[in-house]
Amino acid sequence: MQHFTDELAQAVEQRGNPVIVGLDPRWQLLPVSLAQGDSNDLNVRAAAYEKFCCEVIDVVAPLVPAVKPQSAFFEACGPAGSTALYNVMAHARDKGLLVVLDVKRGDIGSTAEAYADGMLGRESAWGADAVTVSPYLGDDSLHPFVEIAQQRAAGLFVLVKTSNPGSGTLQDQTLATGPVYRHVADLVERLAEQTLGQRGYGSVGAVVGATYPAQLAELRSAMPHTWFLVPGFGSQGGTAQDVAAAFDQRGLGAVVNSSRGIIFAHRRDEYRDRFGEPRWQEAVDASTREMIAQLRAETPAGNLG
Amino acid sequence: MQHFTDELAQAVEQRGNPVIVGLDPRWQLLPVSLAQGDSNDLNVRAAAYEKFCCEVIDVVAPLVPAVKPQSAFFEACGPAGSTALYNVMAHARDKGLLVVLDVKRGDIGSTAEAYADGMLGRESAWGADAVTVSPYLGDDSLHPFVEIAQQRAAGLFVLVKTSNPGSGTLQDQTLATGPVYRHVADLVERLAEQTLGQRGYGSVGAVVGATYPAQLAELRSAMPHTWFLVPGFGSQGGTAQDVAAAFDQRGLGAVVNSSRGIIFAHRRDEYRDRFGEPRWQEAVDASTREMIAQLRAETPAGNLG
Repeated sequence: MQHFTDELAQAVEQRGNPVIVGLDPRWQLLPVSLAQGDSNDLNVRAAAYEKFCCEVIDVVAPLVPAVKPQSAFFEACGPAGSTALYNVMAHARDKGLLVVLDVKRGDIGSTAEAYADGMLGRESAWGADAVTVSPYLGDDSLHPFVEIAQQRAAGLFVLVKTSNPGSGTLQDQTLATGPVYRHVADLVERLAEQTLGQRGYGSVGAVVGATYPAQLAELRSAMPHTWFLVPGFGSQGGTAQDVAAAFDQRGLGAVVNSSRGIIFAHRRDEYRDRFGEPRWQEAVDASTREMIAQLRAETPAGNLG
Repeated sequence: MQHFTDELAQAVEQRGNPVIVGLDPRWQLLPVSLAQGDSNDLNVRAAAYEKFCCEVIDVVAPLVPAVKPQSAFFEACGPAGSTALYNVMAHARDKGLLVVLDVKRGDIGSTAEAYADGMLGRESAWGADAVTVSPYLGDDSLHPFVEIAQQRAAGLFVLVKTSNPGSGTLQDQTLATGPVYRHVADLVERLAEQTLGQRGYGSVGAVVGATYPAQLAELRSAMPHTWFLVPGFGSQGGTAQDVAAAFDQRGLGAVVNSSRGIIFAHRRDEYRDRFGEPRWQEAVDASTREMIAQLRAETPAGNLG
């Protein structure tokens, strides 16, 4: 088993880009050909989500290193959604993608251990290569995740500074030592230092939003051993320039997520006219390539070769 | 539809106690008669969890107002666990219990909305009367939960001061206005004030641990419109005296959770000898009645009549 960040670095280098495609299926945004039947029937909805995400995966698998299924949209379908999520994750692994399961879980003691045990590593119940975790409950709530991630060569991304407008409510509040997000950043960096792989990054990473470029630069410098998962690119307003500071000189150290901008590209003006809804997969392909080109042109990802 | 806290107050008054039984199934602690078969087979494990929790529900339904299934233990079984969780929640509702789904979810925008939409209210995919929510992502991450809770007469419990030893890592850090938990408490109280029911409590409640009695008293006084979900009683060390300050004079305003101390009572010294493992349901019954008696003797829950 290879350390998670070594495997991630290798995948990023092989594909030559740090794009992670967010799988956030929503009924109202699906291509019409997939949104057939009664949307109130949760089995119908879950099956459509599964088919849609698997088709997205087929398009992006040759292009990008990883995908990030958003658990919320699957969970909203009840138990049928859980089965769909499982199948989507299995399909992504089969297609050679790394899978970061976006669940933002957090709990204490043996409960945190149950989450970590069930989700982390390819042999676990869910088979995720990494998961997202919330830090509000404190350091002991992270330890079971860290321990199991280490055992299974899996990874974590802890919420540090998120991309939403209201992230400041708590994260930007000022402690004697600096803002709350910086306090969490220091905790995460310590855990990263204790869990290093060959390429200089720890099993414990951080979620840092593209929509706060100044904080992204500050945190990159404060967290030299922490791999970043950067949401907020595209639909949320983050640009390639905004995320440039997230990378090290090699173009490693960060993956940049786009969800709606890629998976629902057929609804964007520039692609709607070019492909139309029936050719939505081509819009996914084109928007993925566009994002890759932007990151390679305007960030150290251009050094990936 | 009745406001969530009005329904909760009514259930607490009818049963004459504020006990919420935590459903945290763990294979190693199950009665031997239920832990049969290959525990690595997730279908076997999920089916055992379902059977065990449904039997616990049958014992406690006449005694207490509510149960709190812990999602983590079910999720650790993969998709089969989701089906088991769904069935356990349905069984609890059928038996007349309120169901607080302990998921500690938190996300932004339409993702938070997906969680809230799928979980909140009896007509939703999961059919929970209330869920637990994490505040790290900020006020806008709570708003979709608040809005949907209001529409569906459902409830939330936002993590404020949790019961674990490491909760201070973040929650006790000092801002200019006081500790972080107090900052979150003020936010939650404002939301509670905006969502009041007939009995003076809002749809938005708070999780405040039994293991920090001084903070519990401080927060009760700072959060007069916020119903508390109090974990940490029993196995984690919290006593009836510790939680006395969580209640108002009527004995309302708080529910106190016990998980292991009740559902695995057959493993506690005092019940192991008395009932033995084959009569584990009687240990559940006896430990529930013991907790009720303690709360009625040493807290304002004694005023419930």
